[in-house]
Amino acid sequence: MTAGSYSHKYLFDFAKRVMVSLGVSDPDSESFANVLIAADLRGIASHGVARLSRYVDGIRSGKINPRAHPSVLVSAPTISVISGENGLGQVAATFAVEQAIEKARASGVGLSFVRNSNHFGIAGYYAMKPLSEDMIGVCMTNARPLVVHTFSRRAVLGTNPISLAAPTGWRYPFVLDMATSVITSGRVEVYERLSREMPVGWCVDADGEPAVDPAFVLDTIRSRRQGGLLPLGGDKEELGGHKGYGLAMLVDILSGVLSGAAFGLDVGSPDSPSHNVGHFIAALNIDMIMPIDEFRLRMSRLIEMLKSSPRQAGAGRIYIHGEKEFEEAQKRAIEGIPLPEKVVKTLVSIGESVGVPFEAG
Amino acid sequence: MTAGSYSHKYLFDFAKRVMVSLGVSDPDSESFANVLIAADLRGIASHGVARLSRYVDGIRSGKINPRAHPSVLVSAPTISVISGENGLGQVAATFAVEQAIEKARASGVGLSFVRNSNHFGIAGYYAMKPLSEDMIGVCMTNARPLVVHTFSRRAVLGTNPISLAAPTGWRYPFVLDMATSVITSGRVEVYERLSREMPVGWCVDADGEPAVDPAFVLDTIRSRRQGGLLPLGGDKEELGGHKGYGLAMLVDILSGVLSGAAFGLDVGSPDSPSHNVGHFIAALNIDMIMPIDEFRLRMSRLIEMLKSSPRQAGAGRIYIHGEKEFEEAQKRAIEGIPLPEKVVKTLVSIGESVGVPFEAG
Repeated sequence: MTAGSYSHKYLFDFAKRVMVSLGVSDPDSESFANVLIAADLRGIASHGVARLSRYVDGIRSGKINPRAHPSVLVSAPTISVISGENGLGQVAATFAVEQAIEKARASGVGLSFVRNSNHFGIAGYYAMKPLSEDMIGVCMTNARPLVVHTFSRRAVLGTNPISLAAPTGWRYPFVLDMATSVITSGRVEVYERLSREMPVGWCVDADGEPAVDPAFVLDTIRSRRQGGLLPLGGDKEELGGHKGYGLAMLVDILSGVLSGAAFGLDVGSPDSPSHNVGHFIAALNIDMIMPIDEFRLRMSRLIEMLKSSPRQAGAGRIYIHGEKEFEEAQKRAIEGIPLPEKVVKTLVSIGESVGVPFEAG
Repeated sequence: MTAGSYSHKYLFDFAKRVMVSLGVSDPDSESFANVLIAADLRGIASHGVARLSRYVDGIRSGKINPRAHPSVLVSAPTISVISGENGLGQVAATFAVEQAIEKARASGVGLSFVRNSNHFGIAGYYAMKPLSEDMIGVCMTNARPLVVHTFSRRAVLGTNPISLAAPTGWRYPFVLDMATSVITSGRVEVYERLSREMPVGWCVDADGEPAVDPAFVLDTIRSRRQGGLLPLGGDKEELGGHKGYGLAMLVDILSGVLSGAAFGLDVGSPDSPSHNVGHFIAALNIDMIMPIDEFRLRMSRLIEMLKSSPRQAGAGRIYIHGEKEFEEAQKRAIEGIPLPEKVVKTLVSIGESVGVPFEAG
């Protein structure tokens, strides 16, 4: 029961079998495990198997229905409104992106609005799906309130991520996948595990003073006290905090208000029988606008302009969004996914509780 | 020839007549003046009549064709690819948003990709157009390189704004209209006029050191030296500068790369016969997704959650995006638009040169 590296295939298989043991169908368990392992491969540890226990707890507490099938509430040539029926977010969002791709194939663009869903893992996973069809993918989701908007003491909006993936002629596609807050709560958890102080500018307490103790911030979040994470741009208008706040609104309008899901304070409310998370997922058929080869060439040219820029002293490389994660995934596919002892312990314990043994490193 | 307040109707009429005198048609001159005066009314002085001389110079230098008609290069049920034919950006973008609305009426969503255009004024103007049809509007544009991306010394991307407007049941619609940089070059110009130092965190010199002298930064921009404005999130990854950089990329991908316009370093290049700016404009038909009254109610509920939040000490009000600008517009519609002496002088001089007298305060 020690820290170690695990093959992504083993972790995929474990996550899948855990879900099957809880009543999730075989294909839905695979959809779920795909998203979790994609996060671990890409180095986004906070959204990988380390988070398995939350989904297990969600199913056990009855907030997540393991047998739910997403249902289509509205279907127009370009638009789907989908209910996740309180099932796994990964299942609803995988269904939603497939719908968007299908509609984009025929109509140029496909938009899926998802309600009655749950946490779906990394937004980038769904934004990248349309890439295999030479399409641009977009994905957003709302989330439980964590982010203190400009001049407020209390968090109303979530870390509401925006992801856009586009094909290139370069080594990797362009994949932006960003919380609209300065950092995610996963980063706070990482700092807590390391018992490290966080930089000023990430989180604030109820009085808007910098909160640098990760344990304090996690406790603030859990108990829904005042204070929380800062929007991109920080706590004031001077450096653009109202812009990060505005982007979080943009995401909640498209994925929460318009989809019919919960929004603002009501997302993932402990008083509610379901989390009612909302997602917005889009696919855009490049070929209806410009030949894909021309688009790829133009993307590569833009990347070349950015990468060949003179660099700041001490900067080793100018990065394109997604580049670090693709490199990490290549490395981890060979060397395995490193898991800290605490995560291994949790996986062993989950495994014991459902009769799917986790073979510790 | 002094500073003073001018009625928006007078300024509209003046701007329109100046354009007509330069060969722009009557309706196109009105489209142009509408956007300029909307900026002045909303308090965005940098994009109002203060910028008239740039458009006049553009036409006189031959970079902007006053007689251009936008042409439709691709028309699908949801998509238009439009060439502005090197005409005024306001004319191309007004045409593009009308196309998007028309397509959204029939297909749920309409997307317009515009190439061969010029600076179009404020993005929010076009995002707000679909509001009158109970639609959500989105508008983005690329712009000449001003923003130094993470770890670079040189600006490759522009201040590339994102605007989204949505109806509400509240006093004002929600209107996000934000540069993806911490500030715009217009803000630098304002600080120069006031001979004031800028805050640290807005601009950097070639070595990435804070540049607080607005005259120095404007000179950097004009001469295309290294250094420039910072992306939202600042100069490092620690507070999310790579996110602002990523958002600027998102905008350039949709409005520049995909539209067939110039992108990155090539936008507004002094070596090129045209600026070839690109825009992305979308309209989304809410009624195909959810009854508009329900959507308005839900928006109002979200706004109520944000506004009723406990406030930081000293904060008078929690704002919703667009609120300040709508209040300013109501005030200025009555009290007039204040113009500093320098701007009045320029307008008088433009007026003399085209035979359309500007009656100073």
